[in-house]
Amino acid sequence: LTSLWSTHSLREEVARFLTYYCKAPARLDPENVVVLNGCCSVFSTLAMVLCDPGEAFLTPTPFYGGFAFSSHLYSKVELILVHLDTAHPRLFQLTVDKLEQALLEATLTGKKVRGLILINPQNPLGDVYSRDSLKEYLEFAKRYSLHVIIDEIYMLSVFDESITFHSILSMESLPDPNRTHVIWGTSKDFGISGFRFGVLYTQNKKVASAVSSFGYLHGVSGIAQYKLYRLLRDREWIDRVYLPTYRSRLQRAHRYITTKLKALGISFLNRGSGLYVWINLKVYLDPCTFEEERLLHRRFLDNKLILSRGKTYMCKEPGWFRVVFADKPLRLKQAMHRFYQVLETQKLELRVKQPESAQCE
Amino acid sequence: LTSLWSTHSLREEVARFLTYYCKAPARLDPENVVVLNGCCSVFSTLAMVLCDPGEAFLTPTPFYGGFAFSSHLYSKVELILVHLDTAHPRLFQLTVDKLEQALLEATLTGKKVRGLILINPQNPLGDVYSRDSLKEYLEFAKRYSLHVIIDEIYMLSVFDESITFHSILSMESLPDPNRTHVIWGTSKDFGISGFRFGVLYTQNKKVASAVSSFGYLHGVSGIAQYKLYRLLRDREWIDRVYLPTYRSRLQRAHRYITTKLKALGISFLNRGSGLYVWINLKVYLDPCTFEEERLLHRRFLDNKLILSRGKTYMCKEPGWFRVVFADKPLRLKQAMHRFYQVLETQKLELRVKQPESAQCE
Repeated sequence: LTSLWSTHSLREEVARFLTYYCKAPARLDPENVVVLNGCCSVFSTLAMVLCDPGEAFLTPTPFYGGFAFSSHLYSKVELILVHLDTAHPRLFQLTVDKLEQALLEATLTGKKVRGLILINPQNPLGDVYSRDSLKEYLEFAKRYSLHVIIDEIYMLSVFDESITFHSILSMESLPDPNRTHVIWGTSKDFGISGFRFGVLYTQNKKVASAVSSFGYLHGVSGIAQYKLYRLLRDREWIDRVYLPTYRSRLQRAHRYITTKLKALGISFLNRGSGLYVWINLKVYLDPCTFEEERLLHRRFLDNKLILSRGKTYMCKEPGWFRVVFADKPLRLKQAMHRFYQVLETQKLELRVKQPESAQCE
Repeated sequence: LTSLWSTHSLREEVARFLTYYCKAPARLDPENVVVLNGCCSVFSTLAMVLCDPGEAFLTPTPFYGGFAFSSHLYSKVELILVHLDTAHPRLFQLTVDKLEQALLEATLTGKKVRGLILINPQNPLGDVYSRDSLKEYLEFAKRYSLHVIIDEIYMLSVFDESITFHSILSMESLPDPNRTHVIWGTSKDFGISGFRFGVLYTQNKKVASAVSSFGYLHGVSGIAQYKLYRLLRDREWIDRVYLPTYRSRLQRAHRYITTKLKALGISFLNRGSGLYVWINLKVYLDPCTFEEERLLHRRFLDNKLILSRGKTYMCKEPGWFRVVFADKPLRLKQAMHRFYQVLETQKLELRVKQPESAQCE
C-alpha cells in the first residue's frame, strides 16, 4: 500500500531532502519514509499503531493542540500532561526530572505509558532543544522502553542565526532507534498547510508498514504529490532564494513584534524559532483564571485579532497567549494597533472592576 | 471544521451538481454536503459515527472490498454478509427476504445491527436497482430503524441507454431521511481516483457535523479542491463532451469484451453499468474451491493481467472474477489475447489433472 498511495519518487525525494536538511550522518532510507495527508494524520495513525485504547503518551505542556484533538478522534490514546511552569529558572524548561516524576505518578495510578511526545522546535514556546537535552530525553525514554514521537515540523523555521537546530536524524546513533519516530511536513516551513502533507521517518519497519497501511484513508492527492516532488528537489532555489528570504522576513517581523511588546511592557519568551511568540498577559486578567483568559481571547476576536490562548495548549497557568507574527509588515502594524487598543480597553475595565486589587503576579 | 477543510464554494458546487445529475425534486442543501479525501474515508468515518465497536452493518455480497478493508482500520464495525447466490431466478438478486433473514439470524446471535450498506450501481455485479426495489430496501431498513449507507459512486457510469439509474436523492420523499446517507465521488465517473475526493450527502445534521469533524484527518488538498470545483461547475462540457464520449467508449469496450467472452463460452452478468463485468470461470477450477480460484488469479497476474477474484468481494461461491474493461481498444485486444492463453493453459492442466472428473456446475 505504501507504493500505492505514495509514489516511490516522492519518498525518495523526501529521504534526500531530510538527509541534507537534517544533516544526517548517512543517507536516509526511502523505505523508512511514509507520506500521509498531514502531520496530524501521521500522529493519529502512530497513536493507533503504538497504543491500545486507554494507553498513554507523556506530553510536556504547553503543547500543540492539534495533536491533542487528533489523539481522541480515532485512537483513544490518553495524554499525560507534563506541566512545565514558570517556577524553573528558565521558563517552561523541560527536564528529565519532570519526565521521571510524571511517569512515576502515571504508573502509580495504573496507567500504561507507551511513549513520549516532543516537539522541536517547540510549539508554542519556540524552544530549540540543545543536542545534550535531546540526548537526555531520548535516554530517559530508552530507560523505560518508551517510544519517542518527535515532531520537527518547524525545523527550517529557525530564524535566529545564533541558534542551531539539531534534528534527531543528525545524531550519529540513536539510543533506541526502533522506538524513535520523526514527524515532518511542509505545512509550516513552506507555508502550504492546504496541501495536506506529512511525513513519518522511522527505522522500525513494522511501524512504517502499519502506518502506511492507513494511507488507504490518508492518501495525498496525486497532483499535490507531484508538486511536492518538484518543490523538494529544487534545492538550489530553496537554499539560495526561499530560505534566506523566509528567514529574513521572519527575523524582521519578529523584531517588529517584540519591540512593540517591550514598549507595552509585556513579557514574552525570546526564542528565535517558529512563527510565533509566547506572551504573558497575566496582568490583564483579574482574577487570573482560564475564564478571564477566555474572555480576553474573545475580546481579541471581536476586534478581528486571532491569538491562541494558553488553555488550547493545555498550559497549566492562565494568562499566556501565542501571537503569530508571520505576516506582511503593514498587516502586522494594523494588528499591533488593534492589540494595543484591546489591552487599553481591558486595562480600563480592570481599573473599574477592582481599583486597588493585585492581579496575577 | 467543515468550512476549514472543505471550502464552502466546493460544497455548493457539489450540491448543485448532485441536484442536477441525481434529478433531485428540490435543490439539495450545501449544508448537507461533507467532502473528504475519498469515499473510503467517508465510509470509514460514517462507520465510526454510527456504530460502537462490535456493532454491525448488513452487507449484501459480492461487495466492494475497499469498504470491508476500511471498516476494520479504525471503526471495528462488523460486516454481516448477506450472501446473494446463483440459486435465485435472477443471479445474485438482492431481495428483502434475504435481508430479513440475515437480520434475524444476526439478532439471534446477539449482534447489534445498525445499518445496511447498498451500492448502486452495484460493484462488482453492475446491477442498477429499480425504483421499486430501492423503495423496498429502504422500507425494510426503516422497519428496523437501520441506517442506510448507499454508495452511488458509479452513478454516471451507466452506459446502456435502456437502463435508467435512480438515485435515492431523486425520490420525492425518503422513508427515513434521518437515517439515509449517500456517498458519491469523482474517482470512477471521472476516472480521477488519485485526486482523493469523496462526498457524503445526509439530511441528518448531527451525522454531517460528526463526519465533518473527521475532516481534520481526511481533508482534501486545496489544489485538488480548486480543480474539482472547476470541473463540477463545467456542466456544459460534462453534458456535451465528457459524458457522451465516456459512455460511448464504455459501450464499445463492453461490446468488445462481451463478444469475446461469448465466443469463449464464458458466462457473465450483462448489466450495462460500471467499468467491469462479473464473469463465471467455475468450469476452469477443479476442484471448485477458493484455493483454486486464488491459483487462477495468480496465473492471470503472472501473465500480466489484473482481474479481481470473487473472494475479494466476499462472494459465497468460488469461481467468479471481475474484469475491468475501461481501457483503450488496443490494450483490450492484447488483454483478451492473454486471457485466452491463460485459460487455454488452464484447460490443458485440468485435462492432465482429472481427465474424466466433473468440474463445478
